[in-house]
Amino acid sequence: MQFAESLGLIAGALVTCSMIPQIIRIFKLKSARDISILFTTLIMLGMACWLFYGIFLSLVPVILWNAVGVALLSVLLYGKLRYGK
Amino acid sequence: MQFAESLGLIAGALVTCSMIPQIIRIFKLKSARDISILFTTLIMLGMACWLFYGIFLSLVPVILWNAVGVALLSVLLYGKLRYGK
Repeated sequence: MQFAESLGLIAGALVTCSMIPQIIRIFKLKSARDISILFTTLIMLGMACWLFYGIFLSLVPVILWNAVGVALLSVLLYGKLRYGK
Repeated sequence: MQFAESLGLIAGALVTCSMIPQIIRIFKLKSARDISILFTTLIMLGMACWLFYGIFLSLVPVILWNAVGVALLSVLLYGKLRYGK
């Protein structure tokens, strides 16, 4: 179980932290034309569902990574709305 | 528990299916300049970790959504390598 928990923590960290280079890229290029707004909203809704799932089952790593993920995705959505098209 | 399971299934579906409009967009625009390659590889590694996590704990929805997610992300990575920069 220890091993699975660590794997879950690493998995959540990788998925959530992957948003950081994406956000940096669109703000550096000042362009988000190639980013799909449907992608951004669907993945944000998905992570919000995982967040509620985590709250419902009191799973701290699930709550933690998905709360950070939703926050990062709202920055990405802002970047898309500002620099997209 | 029934409610949490449904929420987890919906969450996984949203996160995985969010990749579809993103893949369609870069192949339609024939451009993936704004997509970060680090984003694509990190999220793919993260989903691969979730897949192993699911296999280890025999969680069918986790296995299902992350296997599909890794497959979709390999298409996105191909698109990035083909149309990026």
